[in-house]
Amino acid sequence: MKISARNGLKGKVEKVEEGPITANVKIKIEAPTEITAVITKESVKDLNIKVGDDVVAIIKATEVMVGKE
Amino acid sequence: MKISARNGLKGKVEKVEEGPITANVKIKIEAPTEITAVITKESVKDLNIKVGDDVVAIIKATEVMVGKE
Amino acid sequence: MKISARNGLKGKVEKVEEGPITANVKIKIEAPTEITAVITKESVKDLNIKVGDDVVAIIKATEVMVGKE
Amino acid sequence: MKISARNGLKGKVEKVEEGPITANVKIKIEAPTEITAVITKESVKDLNIKVGDDVVAIIKATEVMVGKE
Amino acid sequence: MKISARNGLKGKVEKVEEGPITANVKIKIEAPTEITAVITKESVKDLNIKVGDDVVAIIKATEVMVGKE
Amino acid sequence: MKISARNGLKGKVEKVEEGPITANVKIKIEAPTEITAVITKESVKDLNIKVGDDVVAIIKATEVMVGKE
Repeated sequence: MKISARNGLKGKVEKVEEGPITANVKIKIEAPTEITAVITKESVKDLNIKVGDDVVAIIKATEVMVGKE
Repeated sequence: MKISARNGLKGKVEKVEEGPITANVKIKIEAPTEITAVITKESVKDLNIKVGDDVVAIIKATEVMVGKE
Repeated sequence: MKISARNGLKGKVEKVEEGPITANVKIKIEAPTEITAVITKESVKDLNIKVGDDVVAIIKATEVMVGKE
Repeated sequence: MKISARNGLKGKVEKVEEGPITANVKIKIEAPTEITAVITKESVKDLNIKVGDDVVAIIKATEVMVGKE
Repeated sequence: MKISARNGLKGKVEKVEEGPITANVKIKIEAPTEITAVITKESVKDLNIKVGDDVVAIIKATEVMVGKE
Repeated sequence: MKISARNGLKGKVEKVEEGPITANVKIKIEAPTEITAVITKESVKDLNIKVGDDVVAIIKATEVMVGKE
């Protein structure tokens, strides 16, 4: 099944820490990869984001899902 | 400022596409990196996720923020 | 109060599992319903999504809120 | 590929409205289904959520992904 | 209807900017208010977050819903 | 580092409750502030949201991050 989510980063599970309801999973991403971000146009202007800029893609852990074949 | 978000992936902006309200930003991540996912304990059991597994970290583009020095 | 969130699915609580900070709530949705998804235009093209297609609406549990009269 | 996201609601695309960056997709869900919500323990107490309660599962459209075989 | 979302900040609409699919809404919050954040335990340790600390509650605009009586 | 997230509300930590995986952090916001919401154009029409309206900005606790100098 193909998914609309634009980001699928392949990697290997390094650590799994389980709690009663949620779990914290660490995944090592080796290969270079591409990330797509949809942000407000306003923030592109505010941060003056342009091709070639060095940036950081910031993602809250609760927004990351895990897929496994 | 340090942020509680567990994922900060360094990279270079490859493409910026602006719409009236939102913008689509592509970022090339070169270096190996680590991703933290917080998922339900239930899904760890359901997918039988364990250290060493090959997995995919799946992230919707609207959940990705961009940081710039 | 009316809310901007486009999806409100009526149902009955089947299970409540409480942890120290979060809780897992299962809700049985009986009636047919409609889901609205806002995804990237890019993914509509990539998955060639068109009217009549059989699809799956995928939602991470941490993104679901519960309302009660 | 199996995904950690707990909610996968099968349905048929009813409408696709494309903008420059994002698109609004309406999906008709026919069959009865189950929704999993992860909310704070605090809100379970505050709303006194218990098995058998009539509730509404509330989901912002930007949090819904679409999967297609 | 009561909602499980922990944050409801009362304010007045200052600006509404509509695009084809999404809209950007600015809301002025006058009164002092309280924000609840659910973050990883790991980040509480990492940032050494303790009562009395001066902090910033950071929220992506796409995660904010609007309610109106 | 500047961040694309449009909402940064300054405040003081009032309470920190740690669980095995996640933590619940209460933050008191004193000063008046502005919130930006990106919602569907459809919901702006549906709720007839206009400048001057009294509204509530609704945010799920799992969507709030914390920043600390």
